[in-house]
Amino acid sequence: MTGVRYLVDGEAHSQVPADDRGLAYGDGLFETIAVRRGRPCLWRRHLDRLSLGCRRLGMEMPARFRLEADVLALIGNRAAGTDPADGVLKVILTRGSGARGYRPPEAAKPRSILSFTPGSPTSMAERNPGVRLILCETRLSENPSLAGIKHLNRLEQVLARREWSDPDILDGVMCDVHGHAVCGTMSNLFSWHSGRIITPALDRCGVAGTLRSLIREQALALGIAFHEGALRPADLAQGDGLFISNALLGVQPVSRFQDAQFDVDRLPWALIERVRHLAFEPETLP
Amino acid sequence: MTGVRYLVDGEAHSQVPADDRGLAYGDGLFETIAVRRGRPCLWRRHLDRLSLGCRRLGMEMPARFRLEADVLALIGNRAAGTDPADGVLKVILTRGSGARGYRPPEAAKPRSILSFTPGSPTSMAERNPGVRLILCETRLSENPSLAGIKHLNRLEQVLARREWSDPDILDGVMCDVHGHAVCGTMSNLFSWHSGRIITPALDRCGVAGTLRSLIREQALALGIAFHEGALRPADLAQGDGLFISNALLGVQPVSRFQDAQFDVDRLPWALIERVRHLAFEPETLP
Repeated sequence: MTGVRYLVDGEAHSQVPADDRGLAYGDGLFETIAVRRGRPCLWRRHLDRLSLGCRRLGMEMPARFRLEADVLALIGNRAAGTDPADGVLKVILTRGSGARGYRPPEAAKPRSILSFTPGSPTSMAERNPGVRLILCETRLSENPSLAGIKHLNRLEQVLARREWSDPDILDGVMCDVHGHAVCGTMSNLFSWHSGRIITPALDRCGVAGTLRSLIREQALALGIAFHEGALRPADLAQGDGLFISNALLGVQPVSRFQDAQFDVDRLPWALIERVRHLAFEPETLP
Repeated sequence: MTGVRYLVDGEAHSQVPADDRGLAYGDGLFETIAVRRGRPCLWRRHLDRLSLGCRRLGMEMPARFRLEADVLALIGNRAAGTDPADGVLKVILTRGSGARGYRPPEAAKPRSILSFTPGSPTSMAERNPGVRLILCETRLSENPSLAGIKHLNRLEQVLARREWSDPDILDGVMCDVHGHAVCGTMSNLFSWHSGRIITPALDRCGVAGTLRSLIREQALALGIAFHEGALRPADLAQGDGLFISNALLGVQPVSRFQDAQFDVDRLPWALIERVRHLAFEPETLP
């Protein structure tokens, strides 16, 4: 945990009670957030997704001022590194401690577990010749109650990520049980087809990324058609281009997916540059 | 955590490092084990399921002698209560600490988190007039890679368990996306039809309980047909009887499921009594 700083329920320590329901059942949510110049990027979007997750799981959302005070206390600490103002903030929110049994306690008190890893969150966020993706064997199971939110039940992503070790492969495309592409293990997918963006619908599985909503908004603002649809891996391979997004990597053009090669110059670069800029523009908290 | 004792990686404390992958992703497994007279019941079956889970998740299984030494150190401690020899042992095994990202560390060191709650594990395990079940709305998603094992991704069970608060309802039946009954939130289901036991297949979702394998063995030993099959809730309601199993509750006859009433006297009591006896017979560890 070298260099990583923690704040558990507002206290600077790096341990969590063993009866936490996040550990017992994955009963909670998380966000991974780029930090620039001591401020979180896309904070409101991360907060909105956390809030949606709380409603879905029937968890109490912490008071926003409390959470923001904790975030500022953690990422504003300039004592610990050479450039502590940039880094990665991770917010885990669990249903808190509980006795044995799936039933949440009547008076569950959510626990916040914040961590900050100093460094550049955006080292790969520049224009580059394109990243490589593979197709994973591990499928995403379908459950509309859990689709879209960023909950702590992530074994499918862990198993998928174990499928490759080649450092040249950035991410793996995961399909649902019907064979439709849904997400990368850590990214959202955008296929570029005849001047339109097509991205998988996420109403049955997958995580709706903060950058995904930003890409949608900016595409519409630029007059680029943006569709949610069913895409098989073959459809991804046969498009004019492919790109992925994630809160730390920003937008990354894909140069290769399985055997398919893409000319990244055909992608909508005006959109990509605009989203990259907005994705790493830090927000000022109150 | 009154009265609960913990052992984390063999050390008597009740905190877990905040970078544990069990917390971050539910990347791990657990077992809940009845303890009688200071010894765990069905220990070998629990160990076998843990071992199967480790193989499925690609985790290293701790050395058996190490795990057993920890268990004995924890449950053999007679200092903490009036009757510390009986209780509930919970074993959580996670992939251990890790940096951010789904990819397991090259040299992941699994972490064991043991807890012991003194008390009677078997308070409900006696013959009684039958328990009540309802049908849950929350579905179990399908993923053959994760089916059968007792991993830490349990949000579906948590959401299902939130569907009722009536203390007269013991458990809720969960269906898969096709509408077939799979499991209770915390139990396995056994329908009694014309002198045969029919239980849901667990190759796509659900947890294969330690008592389930015991019931199967003992049914076959008694010449009772035991089938795995597809059961809709209506099939459960229309059977001659219904019973459930769980490592702490033993075998429980069901007297009511939704609107269906059952005469528990029609159940195969010779089998049930035999399984109840074996389920709470403590095993001697080396």
